Amino acid sequence: MASARPHSPEPTGPLLNTACEAGAGEREALSLAYQAVRDRTEALAAPLGAEDQNLQSMPDASPCKWHRAHTTWFFETFILQRYQPDFRWHEPHFCELFNSYYQAIGKQYPRPKRGLISRPDIHQVADYRAEVDRRITDLLNSVDQRHWRAVSGLAALGLNHEQQHQELILTDVQHGLFQNPSLPAYRLSGAPAATPAGQTAWLSLDGGLANIGHTGTGFAFDNESPCHSYYLEPYRLASRPVSVAEYQAFIRDGGYDNPLLWLSDGWAWQQAGQISHPLYWLERDGECSTQFTLFGERELHPDAPVSHLSYYEANAYANWAGARLPTEQEWEHAVRTLNAWPTEADDSLLPAFDAADRGPLVFGGVWEWTASAYSPYPGFKPGAGAVGEYNGKFMSNQIVLRGRSCLTAAGHSRASYRNFFYPDARWQCSGIRLAQ
Amino acid sequence: MASARPHSPEPTGPLLNTACEAGAGEREALSLAYQAVRDRTEALAAPLGAEDQNLQSMPDASPCKWHRAHTTWFFETFILQRYQPDFRWHEPHFCELFNSYYQAIGKQYPRPKRGLISRPDIHQVADYRAEVDRRITDLLNSVDQRHWRAVSGLAALGLNHEQQHQELILTDVQHGLFQNPSLPAYRLSGAPAATPAGQTAWLSLDGGLANIGHTGTGFAFDNESPCHSYYLEPYRLASRPVSVAEYQAFIRDGGYDNPLLWLSDGWAWQQAGQISHPLYWLERDGECSTQFTLFGERELHPDAPVSHLSYYEANAYANWAGARLPTEQEWEHAVRTLNAWPTEADDSLLPAFDAADRGPLVFGGVWEWTASAYSPYPGFKPGAGAVGEYNGKFMSNQIVLRGRSCLTAAGHSRASYRNFFYPDARWQCSGIRLAQ
Amino acid sequence: MASARPHSPEPTGPLLNTACEAGAGEREALSLAYQAVRDRTEALAAPLGAEDQNLQSMPDASPCKWHRAHTTWFFETFILQRYQPDFRWHEPHFCELFNSYYQAIGKQYPRPKRGLISRPDIHQVADYRAEVDRRITDLLNSVDQRHWRAVSGLAALGLNHEQQHQELILTDVQHGLFQNPSLPAYRLSGAPAATPAGQTAWLSLDGGLANIGHTGTGFAFDNESPCHSYYLEPYRLASRPVSVAEYQAFIRDGGYDNPLLWLSDGWAWQQAGQISHPLYWLERDGECSTQFTLFGERELHPDAPVSHLSYYEANAYANWAGARLPTEQEWEHAVRTLNAWPTEADDSLLPAFDAADRGPLVFGGVWEWTASAYSPYPGFKPGAGAVGEYNGKFMSNQIVLRGRSCLTAAGHSRASYRNFFYPDARWQCSGIRLAQ
Amino acid sequence: MASARPHSPEPTGPLLNTACEAGAGEREALSLAYQAVRDRTEALAAPLGAEDQNLQSMPDASPCKWHRAHTTWFFETFILQRYQPDFRWHEPHFCELFNSYYQAIGKQYPRPKRGLISRPDIHQVADYRAEVDRRITDLLNSVDQRHWRAVSGLAALGLNHEQQHQELILTDVQHGLFQNPSLPAYRLSGAPAATPAGQTAWLSLDGGLANIGHTGTGFAFDNESPCHSYYLEPYRLASRPVSVAEYQAFIRDGGYDNPLLWLSDGWAWQQAGQISHPLYWLERDGECSTQFTLFGERELHPDAPVSHLSYYEANAYANWAGARLPTEQEWEHAVRTLNAWPTEADDSLLPAFDAADRGPLVFGGVWEWTASAYSPYPGFKPGAGAVGEYNGKFMSNQIVLRGRSCLTAAGHSRASYRNFFYPDARWQCSGIRLAQ
Repeated sequence: MASARPHSPEPTGPLLNTACEAGAGEREALSLAYQAVRDRTEALAAPLGAEDQNLQSMPDASPCKWHRAHTTWFFETFILQRYQPDFRWHEPHFCELFNSYYQAIGKQYPRPKRGLISRPDIHQVADYRAEVDRRITDLLNSVDQRHWRAVSGLAALGLNHEQQHQELILTDVQHGLFQNPSLPAYRLSGAPAATPAGQTAWLSLDGGLANIGHTGTGFAFDNESPCHSYYLEPYRLASRPVSVAEYQAFIRDGGYDNPLLWLSDGWAWQQAGQISHPLYWLERDGECSTQFTLFGERELHPDAPVSHLSYYEANAYANWAGARLPTEQEWEHAVRTLNAWPTEADDSLLPAFDAADRGPLVFGGVWEWTASAYSPYPGFKPGAGAVGEYNGKFMSNQIVLRGRSCLTAAGHSRASYRNFFYPDARWQCSGIRLAQ
Repeated sequence: MASARPHSPEPTGPLLNTACEAGAGEREALSLAYQAVRDRTEALAAPLGAEDQNLQSMPDASPCKWHRAHTTWFFETFILQRYQPDFRWHEPHFCELFNSYYQAIGKQYPRPKRGLISRPDIHQVADYRAEVDRRITDLLNSVDQRHWRAVSGLAALGLNHEQQHQELILTDVQHGLFQNPSLPAYRLSGAPAATPAGQTAWLSLDGGLANIGHTGTGFAFDNESPCHSYYLEPYRLASRPVSVAEYQAFIRDGGYDNPLLWLSDGWAWQQAGQISHPLYWLERDGECSTQFTLFGERELHPDAPVSHLSYYEANAYANWAGARLPTEQEWEHAVRTLNAWPTEADDSLLPAFDAADRGPLVFGGVWEWTASAYSPYPGFKPGAGAVGEYNGKFMSNQIVLRGRSCLTAAGHSRASYRNFFYPDARWQCSGIRLAQ
Repeated sequence: MASARPHSPEPTGPLLNTACEAGAGEREALSLAYQAVRDRTEALAAPLGAEDQNLQSMPDASPCKWHRAHTTWFFETFILQRYQPDFRWHEPHFCELFNSYYQAIGKQYPRPKRGLISRPDIHQVADYRAEVDRRITDLLNSVDQRHWRAVSGLAALGLNHEQQHQELILTDVQHGLFQNPSLPAYRLSGAPAATPAGQTAWLSLDGGLANIGHTGTGFAFDNESPCHSYYLEPYRLASRPVSVAEYQAFIRDGGYDNPLLWLSDGWAWQQAGQISHPLYWLERDGECSTQFTLFGERELHPDAPVSHLSYYEANAYANWAGARLPTEQEWEHAVRTLNAWPTEADDSLLPAFDAADRGPLVFGGVWEWTASAYSPYPGFKPGAGAVGEYNGKFMSNQIVLRGRSCLTAAGHSRASYRNFFYPDARWQCSGIRLAQ
Repeated sequence: MASARPHSPEPTGPLLNTACEAGAGEREALSLAYQAVRDRTEALAAPLGAEDQNLQSMPDASPCKWHRAHTTWFFETFILQRYQPDFRWHEPHFCELFNSYYQAIGKQYPRPKRGLISRPDIHQVADYRAEVDRRITDLLNSVDQRHWRAVSGLAALGLNHEQQHQELILTDVQHGLFQNPSLPAYRLSGAPAATPAGQTAWLSLDGGLANIGHTGTGFAFDNESPCHSYYLEPYRLASRPVSVAEYQAFIRDGGYDNPLLWLSDGWAWQQAGQISHPLYWLERDGECSTQFTLFGERELHPDAPVSHLSYYEANAYANWAGARLPTEQEWEHAVRTLNAWPTEADDSLLPAFDAADRGPLVFGGVWEWTASAYSPYPGFKPGAGAVGEYNGKFMSNQIVLRGRSCLTAAGHSRASYRNFFYPDARWQCSGIRLAQ
């Protein structure tokens, strides 16, 4: 189901937007979008056996089965519970098991123990998904005008939410399979070839008062709003992310041994974890020549973008290179000003430089760490009700990443999209773009 | 496959013994015994789905699937590797994945991560078992006289080892299912009814020089040897283990709140863990009236033996009761002197007082904590080769338990049998018998 | 040596500035300033016995004796080592013991073990201070024109550095004495009386392009530069910090029990630490009516500013109050626009509202948590050489606080001053000012 | 005050014994003994400054000042509180600060925080000691016949208790000073020279029914009773402890790298701690040629007894040497049978083989790890009242050591004496004697 299509940084397509009126066309479009997203989740899970789907290799990661159930719980809780006549829970204790972090909804099963949920099993979760799908589809076809806006808005949120979890299914299963000394592959063939990295150009941008944040009528998360002015000094942005070869030069030059390149917390983190290369690089006899991927163990290609780095490593690399990371505002401004956006493809699963002629910015299928702590925009208001916990309460201690990765669902991201992780997170498909 | 048969404390039956000569009868008897034990493991795993079989709820517990593979690895490594012509490993990295703790064999996959072994899956483990079974059965029928003694001795060890893991499959899966708020049952019906506890009598024993340790020609582990003299003062032993009703009286009397009853380490353990009742008792609104069992949640029966206690709790209870725990020598001496042994049944799965008329000692389907630290007997020699790691290297920091439990394979234990766990272990089916 | 004098947010006084020319007046002024700051450190340590001075109650805090030695090491390392003819170390292993975090200088004694430095003792540290003082004073009088700028600049840095440690001496000793059940006082008498809090007014500010960062010729740390433009939306700022009475209302209203008010990390922190009130409030029988201060245990005064809160608590309070914390840019802009600054006094040691008529903003002797993560300003360049580690490497995971506290040395802070701590830090004298 | 005198394994001298009648002689003898022990504590503390006396380098160790106060609290609590007319506490909160672990007495200040007790300071502790000394001396002279036995028994216990803490003062201060990179000496001169180790002989002992435990009228702790029969197989005991040269051979032979020599828990401990030599050996460039002692850094002498080892190391060494550790019963039986006991000297402070002609057994000034877990003797009864917590509640998870060390007070130990520590403890002066 690979779909490769050029994509603008400001999508306004109808796919997951909230239309105010429930015409037959809107109902059908949303039902089709619903089914497409839900089907993709099951397709992503399909290559995984029951045990693979239950793997939880660290508290930050969740089992695939849990993702499948949690995204279903989201629709059940936030839509069906409120808008379905004669609603009853599919199974009452799912409400605890599959509530991720919504305090307003109730008790949550402890996150570090999600790998201990042997029941429901994968078939029972498939049944759960099927029943909720039936009920949601019915509701989308039957809900009256008065509730259409709320229901369709929550459905759009639920689908975007599910797309986020689709990416997590892949990152989490990669981390889970990595624990196995046989290094099993998630997918056996079809890995894309690396394309030449090319020279990095420094693109100059003028700065001034920029508009930052979501505009237009397309779907966006609450953390992308409100759109606001932000004053930027003139700056320069690298035309492409850092490559494996460039990162190898940093390592050869003693980058991991020189505390002066590192943030203080980063140095402590790196020393405590004895970290000396990106997460999935495989060291044998002191050398790294391969890495673990969703296609199993593969040669490290010097022309590929480097990936699976923490913010601390990205920051140390930038210091070594005599540069810095861009702020999220610089990043967004440049993407908009240059009208640049990666070609999106659903399932390449491996970072590679974007060969398509997309203008001055080249992307690499990696999320790009910014220099910005994840904070509310001026005037930020969380969504109303329990979904208000979606984003706002995470606005401390995390760092914004921008762009999209080779694991991101097509059509999911945009110029104003704000991804965020703790600075020591490495299991996401994260890379480095420099600024000056 | 329930088998209930009276049993003497000194079994000499042929089942798992090492015969010196490989007559056709011996070959056939061992093959039959082999098949029976191996089949029972699969029967115990049968009610469990793939995810259930992969559960690891704490580092001390292992997934059922891992037990199934590890016991197979034991035969492959200690018998086939050495005695099978043209031996090759079923799958080379199983050697790391399923090596529990044998340093002489090689690297071991980290114990706390056994729940992360999604592959091999349950079917691949079944294949592994079937192939090793074929090869062992062939070997038992073909190995020449010269190696018979070694092979049959290792096979007997492997089968006794597998019986130990059969008990662990049950204790570990109970702990794993306990993590699930829906409290799923391992077995849906057939729980035995509690029988009246009856009064506790104090049996007086004379002491003097006792013979302690394994005698006779039946199988025994190395830690039961050599048989030796041990001087005992006269003592008294309770005729039966402590009941739920008696333990409830201890709790009601503030037993968990009075540090003077506890060992110093026990008090620290109990305070840190906020422990106020046996492991599987379920507290709702400050009261415990049910407990989690392999049959799911069930009423706490006052006439059942109390179980799933740590040594610290057993010791505190004994202090409260104005008594003490018996030493392992007292325990063994009494069982031999009184010629007492529980009726053995393969699968009652729930502790209950032993209704059969077995003489002055009544058992309860619980392992009985002794006062004895697990130490080598005078003159102890570990088995030769890698199997020498079986017992000896664990002889520190652990406490001996004696008897057998309702989860122990029939025919597996005996008067000289020494079970051992850390003093804070509670997930075994452990109870209390008092001494004075 | 109490000195209370009105103070402008933009001090340009000569005290600790770097003059480019070494006239006799400049030399004398700097020597006098040097002596005054150095003397104040010793005066702060004077009430403390040898054991008090060695207390380290947590890794974040350091012993008073260590502060006294470290500030001396700073002058020895960064000035004498480079500019004193015939330099030799006072005592070579002090270089490891009293190096806080300067990787470019060499090895550092582990921070969590500073309380284990029994030797040098307090008298040897006094000798160390006296000798370095002699040598610095000589140098300031003798260094030639060519090095004056560098030496005087480093001396100014060293004195501002020492003033920061003076505040830490007080915060750290308060935390240290708090561990003692007898709750000893650092100072026995002279605690200032609380003054009425008064009503909070909401001051409206226009926003627009603001100048943020240090300007002028006075001393500032590198993290306050460069001065730059920042676009602000119109906002409102509370005229004074939150009072004890107001915070008590938050507690009474269940503020610590409602997860919806908290950041996700804050809730986890608060639950794990079972935190239900500010750090130094003393709970007896479920009620807090007193708090521990540098004057020992004292009544909680409703009209005092609330203090010793984490960022998480400040943020939760703001949510409860239907407001938010100001950004550091809003804070700085308001202070400049309104030309407001607290009266400064060296040693009141207790937060109190500032009774002096200082215009629309009232201060409370507490550092004010902002909503801003501690990040580099656009174009930030760390100082050259090892002092470049002073600030820049801490720019992750911390939150900016603005203003000054009742423990801050007079003349030390200014409108552009950026203090920073981890969001869970509570042992600083930190409080809350709201914005909207 | 060095006193070197030959000593028998069964002291019956009057020094710290409990006489039943309070004749003038008894009163005076006890007063003199009291003063001598109390004076020695102060003499041991005298070389230490205030900060040295407050050092707590790990939870297992306590500050010297705390030992001085705790031993005083012992007399105040167990004697004065009960027997002094018009008793009042010297200072009420000392009761919490200096209660080590007596739950029956009340709350205890947390052990890991004892280094945070800056007040009372060393002078206030000296005052505390002086006042309690006055009051105890008065009481010993005035208490009537009726209470003499109880008071004199508790006084003997208190003095033996204080002697134990005298040894801890030395072991704990050595560990505290070891944290300082300047490796300060507790004592500057007078270290005894090493004497030749000589050959190890294997002494054969017959075994049979041995009498184990305290006999006679001299003082003994409750854990040495009751005296009882214990059956021993014939065994052989090494004539002297293992030397540094012998232990170096173990290391050179890869003893720390061979898991087959180690107990399972010992291997895990050693790997986690990256332990490759005894605690105080100083490794520079991969070699150990010196060690830290109470005399500062000194050459490792091949002819000295090896010391400061954990039980795990002692056990691994014994396995490597093809031997084992003796049980505590073997040890006691041999010492009695051979009538062997070390020359006792109050303050050599460094392990050395005992040159004096003491018969077949040679001692080395080190406690000797036995193979025996610390358990109650058959019929053991703890002392009545709160002092019943003295020993009994520690009878789990610890290992018995026998003999005495070069830090033990003269006259303090005997053949039946049972010292005990956790198997990973290394900061005591512990060594190895082999058995077979």
